[in-house]
Amino acid sequence: MSPAHAMTVISRRDFEAWDRADPLAPFRTEFHLPADTIYLNGNSLGAMPLAAARRARRVVESEWADGLIGSMNSAGWYELPSTLGRKTAPLIGARANEVVVTDATGINLYKVLAAALEMQPERRVIVMEGSNFPTNNYMVQGLIRHLDKGYSIRFRETDGLLSAITDDVAAICITHVHYKSGLIHDMAALTARAHAVGAAAVWDICHSVGVMPIDLNACRVDFAVGCTYKYLNGGPGAPALLFAAERHHGKYLQPLTGWYGHADPFAFERDYRPAEDIRQMLTGTQPTASLSTAEIGIDIALRADIDAVRHKSQRMTGLFIDLVEERCSRAGFELASPRDAAHRGSHVSFLHDEGYAIIRALHDARVICDYREPGNMRFGFAPLYNRYVDVWDAVDRLHSIMTEETWRQADYQIRKAVT
Amino acid sequence: MSPAHAMTVISRRDFEAWDRADPLAPFRTEFHLPADTIYLNGNSLGAMPLAAARRARRVVESEWADGLIGSMNSAGWYELPSTLGRKTAPLIGARANEVVVTDATGINLYKVLAAALEMQPERRVIVMEGSNFPTNNYMVQGLIRHLDKGYSIRFRETDGLLSAITDDVAAICITHVHYKSGLIHDMAALTARAHAVGAAAVWDICHSVGVMPIDLNACRVDFAVGCTYKYLNGGPGAPALLFAAERHHGKYLQPLTGWYGHADPFAFERDYRPAEDIRQMLTGTQPTASLSTAEIGIDIALRADIDAVRHKSQRMTGLFIDLVEERCSRAGFELASPRDAAHRGSHVSFLHDEGYAIIRALHDARVICDYREPGNMRFGFAPLYNRYVDVWDAVDRLHSIMTEETWRQADYQIRKAVT
Repeated sequence: MSPAHAMTVISRRDFEAWDRADPLAPFRTEFHLPADTIYLNGNSLGAMPLAAARRARRVVESEWADGLIGSMNSAGWYELPSTLGRKTAPLIGARANEVVVTDATGINLYKVLAAALEMQPERRVIVMEGSNFPTNNYMVQGLIRHLDKGYSIRFRETDGLLSAITDDVAAICITHVHYKSGLIHDMAALTARAHAVGAAAVWDICHSVGVMPIDLNACRVDFAVGCTYKYLNGGPGAPALLFAAERHHGKYLQPLTGWYGHADPFAFERDYRPAEDIRQMLTGTQPTASLSTAEIGIDIALRADIDAVRHKSQRMTGLFIDLVEERCSRAGFELASPRDAAHRGSHVSFLHDEGYAIIRALHDARVICDYREPGNMRFGFAPLYNRYVDVWDAVDRLHSIMTEETWRQADYQIRKAVT
Repeated sequence: MSPAHAMTVISRRDFEAWDRADPLAPFRTEFHLPADTIYLNGNSLGAMPLAAARRARRVVESEWADGLIGSMNSAGWYELPSTLGRKTAPLIGARANEVVVTDATGINLYKVLAAALEMQPERRVIVMEGSNFPTNNYMVQGLIRHLDKGYSIRFRETDGLLSAITDDVAAICITHVHYKSGLIHDMAALTARAHAVGAAAVWDICHSVGVMPIDLNACRVDFAVGCTYKYLNGGPGAPALLFAAERHHGKYLQPLTGWYGHADPFAFERDYRPAEDIRQMLTGTQPTASLSTAEIGIDIALRADIDAVRHKSQRMTGLFIDLVEERCSRAGFELASPRDAAHRGSHVSFLHDEGYAIIRALHDARVICDYREPGNMRFGFAPLYNRYVDVWDAVDRLHSIMTEETWRQADYQIRKAVT
């Protein structure tokens, strides 16, 4: 069945009907979304939960203003990384004592990969995807340059990853859902392969946490990091999650050994003694306002049925692909994401030579999505607040831009800073 | 002249008069302070500027809620670490291009010390103060364990630091103002000594920035880190400042090489190419709400005459010492801070065997200060919002607690988590 054939029977009314039947529809009321805007960038920064605004006011105007330093205990600031970790655990198939929310994703990646490399101290190869979100590559490059022990990264793309995991590999460091294509890597298979050759498995779940079922322990993942400000709607730059399997606690150390990771932080001992539990992954005092809004997003995610989220995500991305290919069939878009929903995360990329200008025109038509060089137009679908009609309307506006050639406007051709 | 003799001529009226004459007095109106509370813990967490509450609302309820990902550019989020660094520079004797505000103090210390060690790759000794705030020691211990190249820390206390800086030293890593005693280390002399033997000088200015003149470049400091949430009033866990002298830019790399530190972050290249300027010290996306409130505190500090701040700070701490020693002369307090104001930061420590219980009783009397094991009672004075009468009133309440032996209450003896 060709996409065109599949689509001819549907109209905006169908999308409206699907919204009426959507069990997740009530979640949208918990978010603030700007009027007349179709926000398809939740894969980059999730929308603001209304409760996050209330929480931010409480943290700043009450806990800080009135509670002052006492809020470290009375408002639970000191425990927030563990509190939020415990909450996040069920979303990712972890035990309550295996997760913290702290620092930033890149920094957490540095921490856990350093720990993972201790598991195979004689090996010197790390397997990564070359086209991965660059900061992961950069962080690992910084780590191994710093270690200065002859480590190297074996870069492979999707199909080459499995065969690259040979018995000289110390660790694999793979991103679950690709930041551009949205392709889902097989966490179970790649982790099993890593373990079969004695390598550690480190996963980045930035683009999957909150939008699909994840079971780190079923996959026997060793360490993982992930983002709270994408599909978990934690707020701009909110601290990141970090998972360390319980079997590794007390054995492998992350190197950013701050006082929060000490066995007895308030003893103020001169020398570091590592905490024997997940707290060893902590460094120091956290940005409390940002960490607090993260809790709101996590709380919302916990109330959502993740299977329903995944179902809606697959359906929205599939409908979007079909609609673009039918309604803009002559516009020159090339799908850069898996056509099979089983292998696709919650964002869709299309390639177009004029992608940059088209994205700019879409922004002015109040469809917010983003652009990644070269030519990559990226559309993210957040099942907790995006509606089926958003899919229809976004493609409708894209269709207008392509048929009216709005994107040819001179201003749209001028490159500005890209978000 | 004995303290007792000096004090007998003054009363609360004198303190009131000094407040009336205080050129910094108007700053107090810019802060929220809880009613009836004397807050002497700005050395740990500064009070909330009223503008910080407005800024936090704007960041969350407008920039995030309505601007969404577009705020990365339109609200200046992406540039905030550099924007705030440029602003902070004049407070610490740095050039505008030598400072960023990013990540946390401990993480920044790890970054800059790793870079500093590259300056003397053949040397293996780092000089630190053993009684320093432990997280600094811990971070350096984590770094050198991780490097696994035979580095060691030469721990010395105050008087032994200078002579410990010999020609086998790679770097010194000293805290400007001691977190417990408040003693000011001689930045110029220790840095000069380090340079004389070819070592790098790394300074932690957490307890001095915002409360005394600092001139990193006059002292030829190589790298420095510091806190924005103490005397800069940036908000709980707000990101930290990081200074790298321009002469080192492009030469020595910090190892947490995230995409914000790439020469061309939005080119999304596979391999790390370091930015040639201060941006190499950046990692990735920052906790924006927390970073934004930090800007408010920095803006206030920029409007204050730092010499007036230092003058008031020295006077308040001196009056506090004198009053405690006069009015509580038989209570058994032992001064643990320099008596000479020239060598004293903006907090004062007194030792007392019952320090913990006394601090608890002071909290109930609405004097907020803190306790550090063993027996260390710590009182911080923030010239931008503490008044001279606060000094009088705090000692008055302490005097009552000691004469009425309030601290003997059973509840005060029970140890709880310490902030």
